[in-house]
Amino acid sequence: MSGETTITIIGNLTTDPELRFTGSGLAVAGFTVASTSRTFNRAAGAWDDGNTLFMRCSAWREMADHVAESLNRGARVIVTGRLSQRSYETREGDKRTVVELTVDEIGPSLRFATAKPVKATRNGDASSPATPQSDPWASNTPAPAAAGAPGSSWNGDEPPF
Amino acid sequence: MSGETTITIIGNLTTDPELRFTGSGLAVAGFTVASTSRTFNRAAGAWDDGNTLFMRCSAWREMADHVAESLNRGARVIVTGRLSQRSYETREGDKRTVVELTVDEIGPSLRFATAKPVKATRNGDASSPATPQSDPWASNTPAPAAAGAPGSSWNGDEPPF
Amino acid sequence: MSGETTITIIGNLTTDPELRFTGSGLAVAGFTVASTSRTFNRAAGAWDDGNTLFMRCSAWREMADHVAESLNRGARVIVTGRLSQRSYETREGDKRTVVELTVDEIGPSLRFATAKPVKATRNGDASSPATPQSDPWASNTPAPAAAGAPGSSWNGDEPPF
Amino acid sequence: MSGETTITIIGNLTTDPELRFTGSGLAVAGFTVASTSRTFNRAAGAWDDGNTLFMRCSAWREMADHVAESLNRGARVIVTGRLSQRSYETREGDKRTVVELTVDEIGPSLRFATAKPVKATRNGDASSPATPQSDPWASNTPAPAAAGAPGSSWNGDEPPF
Repeated sequence: MSGETTITIIGNLTTDPELRFTGSGLAVAGFTVASTSRTFNRAAGAWDDGNTLFMRCSAWREMADHVAESLNRGARVIVTGRLSQRSYETREGDKRTVVELTVDEIGPSLRFATAKPVKATRNGDASSPATPQSDPWASNTPAPAAAGAPGSSWNGDEPPF
Repeated sequence: MSGETTITIIGNLTTDPELRFTGSGLAVAGFTVASTSRTFNRAAGAWDDGNTLFMRCSAWREMADHVAESLNRGARVIVTGRLSQRSYETREGDKRTVVELTVDEIGPSLRFATAKPVKATRNGDASSPATPQSDPWASNTPAPAAAGAPGSSWNGDEPPF
Repeated sequence: MSGETTITIIGNLTTDPELRFTGSGLAVAGFTVASTSRTFNRAAGAWDDGNTLFMRCSAWREMADHVAESLNRGARVIVTGRLSQRSYETREGDKRTVVELTVDEIGPSLRFATAKPVKATRNGDASSPATPQSDPWASNTPAPAAAGAPGSSWNGDEPPF
Repeated sequence: MSGETTITIIGNLTTDPELRFTGSGLAVAGFTVASTSRTFNRAAGAWDDGNTLFMRCSAWREMADHVAESLNRGARVIVTGRLSQRSYETREGDKRTVVELTVDEIGPSLRFATAKPVKATRNGDASSPATPQSDPWASNTPAPAAAGAPGSSWNGDEPPF
C-alpha cells in the first residue's frame, strides 16, 4: 500500500468500543474518538477549549479484541491509522460521505493514567485464555455465531456499524 | 493552540482554487485535494488504484493569494494543516458534518514537475506588485470590492465556499 | 509553540524507562524506542525486517511517573512528540549532535497486548494512592531526595541521561 | 514497506541542493532543511525563535532532478518522507550515527512565495542528459560523467554526500 493518508489523533472514546464480526469471522472494534484542541486565552490566563473533532475508528482482528477488552468510554487514547472516505445512500436516497480511520496502532494514553500491557497469547488470543469464563466483556459482545446471523454480518462493502 | 489534529496529504487539485474574501477583507483560497492510494497487485505485477480521499482545504491570507496564483486544477500538491469538523443544516433541515483542512503549509509537489519559488513582496503581496495589470490571475478571481457584495462575503460562521 | 516538527513512532522499548528528577524536582522518564520497518519479500512470500530507527525519548512530569510504572523493556508503544536536536561536546572535545523526541503522548500498543488504563489520582499521583507501600516500582527509582544529589540532578542544560 | 516512521518538516534549505549520481546512474539530490520553532513571548508580545532542527534529506530519481532545478539555498519547503538512521565509522575509528530523511514528496512552500509547477516531460525529463546544453542548471551540478569518477560514485553502502 502506498500513498495513503496517515494521521495520529489524541482524544477520548465517546462510548465503549463495539465489537462485531464480519461474515467471515473477522473481529472489528468500532468506536469514536473525540479530540478537542485548546487555545491559550491570554486575557484570562487560562486554556479555552477549541473545536472538537469526532473521528470514527475501526480496529481489526486481534487488535479489535484487545481494544474491546482494554478500553471503555472516556478513555484517553493515541490512535494512528489511515484516513478513508466512504459514501453511502440514506433510506431517503440522499448521498452521504463519512471520513473514517482504519486503526494501525492504538494505545491508552499515559498522560493521566497508568496502563500495564499484558501480552496476548496466540491460543484463544485474549489475555486470559485459561479462564475464559472470567472474561469481563464476553457477555457484552455478539458471539461469532450470532455474528453470522442476518443483519450482523459484514459483506465487505459496508462496515458492520 | 494545542492538541490539534494535524495531517499531511499528497494529492491533486480537483478544480482551480477559488479565491474569496471574508467580510473583513481576509483572503481565503478554497480547493479540494484528491488523494489516491495504490496497492501492489502481485498477480498482475502492477499497482492498482485504491480508495480516493477528497479533502476540502482552506488557505488564508497571503497564502491564499499565492495558492490562487500558483496552482491549477490537476496540480499535485503537498498540504499540511489541521483537521476540523463543521456541522451545518441543509435547506431541508438535515444536519450534515464535513471534515475540512485548515492549511498551514502547501506547495506544488516536485515528484512529476519543477516549480521555482518566487518570493512575494510585502507591498501588494503578490509576485508582481509594480505591474499589477500584468497579474495573470487577477481577472479570474473576484475583486475585493465584489467580495464585499451580498452573497460573497463571509461572516465568520460559515466558509465562503 | 509553533512550527515544531512532530512525529509518531511505533516501536519497542530497548530498556526499562529510567526515571530521574531535575534539580528543581521535575520528573523525567528517559527511554529509547526501536522502530523496525518491514519489507515484503515477494520471492520468499514473507516479510523481511528493514532498518531499525532508535529514538531517544523524554517524557516529563506526571507522564514520566506513569511511563515508569506502566512500561518495561520490550513493551511495544505508540509515541507522539516533537523532534529536537541537541549538540554537546565529548570529553575529547569532539562535537556531537543527537536527535531526540520530547513526548507529548505515549501509550502501550494494543496490537499484541491488552492494557487497561487506571486513572492517576492527583494526590500522590500514581494509581494506587491508598496503598503506596504496594507500589511495585517505588524502590526501583531514585527518590526525589537522592535526585538532588550530585550526579543525578539536572541543571536544565543537559538531560539527566 | 510497512512500519516506517514518516515525518513532515517545514523549513529552509541551508545550501543549494547537491545533485549526484550513484554508480548505477541513479540521481540523488542531497540537502539539509533547517526547521525553527517559535514560542510566543507573552511579556514581549512577540514570537521568539526556538530550537532549530537540521535534517539531512535525500531525494531520488526524477525528483532529484526537479529539486536541483527548482530549489536554492534559503528556499522554504515542505518535505515529507521516512526517517532512517545510519551508522558509520570516522577515520579515527569512532562510531557515529546520523538521522536522515528519505524524501517521499517535497515542494516549495507557498507561504511567502509563489511557485508555478511545470510538468516534467518523460523524454529527457528534466534531467535531459542527452541535451545538457539546454539544461539551464547543468553547469551548477556535477555532470554524470564526473559522477562516475572515483570518489564521487555511490556503492550503495554510503550516501554520496
